[in-house]
Amino acid sequence: MTDSAHQNRCVIGVDVGGTKVAAGFVNELGEMSRPVRVPMNPRGTAAEGFAAVASVLDKLLNEKRADNSSISIGVCAPGPLDPRTGVVLNPPNVPCWRDFPLVAELERRYGVVARLDNDANAAALAESLWGAGRGYSNVFYTCIGTGIGTGVVFDGRIFHGRTGSAAEGGHVSIDYRGPVCNCGKRGCIEALASGTAIARRAREAVAADEKAGSRLLALADGDASSIRSEMIGSAAQMNDALAQQILEDTVEFLAIWLGNIVDLLEPDVMILGGGVSEMLRPRFPQIQDRLKTWCVNAQCCKIPLVPAHYGENSGIAGGAALCFLPDET
Amino acid sequence: MTDSAHQNRCVIGVDVGGTKVAAGFVNELGEMSRPVRVPMNPRGTAAEGFAAVASVLDKLLNEKRADNSSISIGVCAPGPLDPRTGVVLNPPNVPCWRDFPLVAELERRYGVVARLDNDANAAALAESLWGAGRGYSNVFYTCIGTGIGTGVVFDGRIFHGRTGSAAEGGHVSIDYRGPVCNCGKRGCIEALASGTAIARRAREAVAADEKAGSRLLALADGDASSIRSEMIGSAAQMNDALAQQILEDTVEFLAIWLGNIVDLLEPDVMILGGGVSEMLRPRFPQIQDRLKTWCVNAQCCKIPLVPAHYGENSGIAGGAALCFLPDET
Repeated sequence: MTDSAHQNRCVIGVDVGGTKVAAGFVNELGEMSRPVRVPMNPRGTAAEGFAAVASVLDKLLNEKRADNSSISIGVCAPGPLDPRTGVVLNPPNVPCWRDFPLVAELERRYGVVARLDNDANAAALAESLWGAGRGYSNVFYTCIGTGIGTGVVFDGRIFHGRTGSAAEGGHVSIDYRGPVCNCGKRGCIEALASGTAIARRAREAVAADEKAGSRLLALADGDASSIRSEMIGSAAQMNDALAQQILEDTVEFLAIWLGNIVDLLEPDVMILGGGVSEMLRPRFPQIQDRLKTWCVNAQCCKIPLVPAHYGENSGIAGGAALCFLPDET
Repeated sequence: MTDSAHQNRCVIGVDVGGTKVAAGFVNELGEMSRPVRVPMNPRGTAAEGFAAVASVLDKLLNEKRADNSSISIGVCAPGPLDPRTGVVLNPPNVPCWRDFPLVAELERRYGVVARLDNDANAAALAESLWGAGRGYSNVFYTCIGTGIGTGVVFDGRIFHGRTGSAAEGGHVSIDYRGPVCNCGKRGCIEALASGTAIARRAREAVAADEKAGSRLLALADGDASSIRSEMIGSAAQMNDALAQQILEDTVEFLAIWLGNIVDLLEPDVMILGGGVSEMLRPRFPQIQDRLKTWCVNAQCCKIPLVPAHYGENSGIAGGAALCFLPDET
């Protein structure tokens, strides 16, 4: 990235997570530079939370020494939030901000244009602009990690729905009698196929001694309660039967869920990001194959199922992507 | 409707069903006139199927004696079909048309502009333009009858997805271990809450003698296999416990399903049409109440759940509505 590329436009993407704030410059090609990261205490005061954001921004802006008039700041944060007003509502993962006018605070402090959206929406937009969704009109993106977030981009715009709360695809239930999700619903895909869910399934199976001698127990130093989702991928690679079974089941759950998504949205592309997606990457063809069983759409196998372009920096790219959008009407 | 309203624009809506073709004039206010209806044999030849359509059109056009240059014809038909090319693909309910270029045939025969879409999409558009969806940007419509069709209108346009096969919401599964749907998937809302599904549930319960003495058996002249969905509504009104239980279960299934729809699409309004919706109309408040349990969207109770404006003429209105749309790009 040359300095001249930023001569007229300087965009900072900010990723507010449950325990950290990360930020960096992002150019119009979606390339990131000078990423910085500070811890954040999500349970402090609202001002302390904002101070963490301000500290990364101050750092970047001091480095840059740019005229603020050419700067925009795009923030992605955990929902619920209102992307239209720029207010963070009451995110369970960042309880310090309740009805916090983040965009207004940023604009006041820095005299810049700021934008806000939730993680998955913003990451979907970044993928659509610069990543695995380039060239497609209708993009479905999901981040399968600790939880499951989704974002939908139609014709270059994030699909927000009535109040900005659309695209909560992680809480589409495929099993109304199934396990209770954090959200209170039963059988949400998040309760079946997130990192948290598959670790829970593994712990339960090991505790029930379903597959005695699973490598998972060894990986967790003999303590079933310490099994984490990453270990399932490792154990599966070592041909551990239990770990493989858990991944097979996860493939099936995702195929059922994506079948619903395709039957409702018929996107041009489905982009899978997040740690669990990374772990399942060798099984993408299998998900696509099972999708045929779980979709009335006879053309579903023609919809590409692809890994996300952005990894752990998807939040920074996503935040920045918000600034490359035309104003919403 | 005055004749002057049609002086420059004359739109005919055509509704092709499994056993009939119905059509009528529809003005720019969505008002219908001179509806006609002829039987159609869906299992004849393609030409015979087309002749049924032509017979209603000939009848209307002869009455009208209008200059064809001012006429447009909009047809709604059972899917799958391609709304962009105007070709009927391979609808199970109209097997006589396989890859049949209906729009091209109509344009050739009548020298007019013709449009085509599936029943639920077209009806959703009519509701959006002239019915219960007027004034809302994002409209979700469902017709709950023998099957369950859905249509989505965003900003005045039917949402088609990649190839025109989006909005098959009737095949969103909420119970992957549930009953097998006609489509082959398990637990589709169509397999749980359509007229066909609730009649099946009633027959099974009566056959299993779950509620001995149910009025349903009397309504079906003592023959459980003759129970139809309409009888369930009648029996429920007579305080029949089995019929009421079936409707309660149906309310719950619909709340689970609409919860998924809202979490994914967050529409501005949800419109329920079709015979089963009509039967459930006194229970709409209960569906809306249960929706809160099945939706992460805290604002879901603010989304109106309303009956469709168009009843059995929704197909004619829907077909016509296609002609009041600007050309798609």
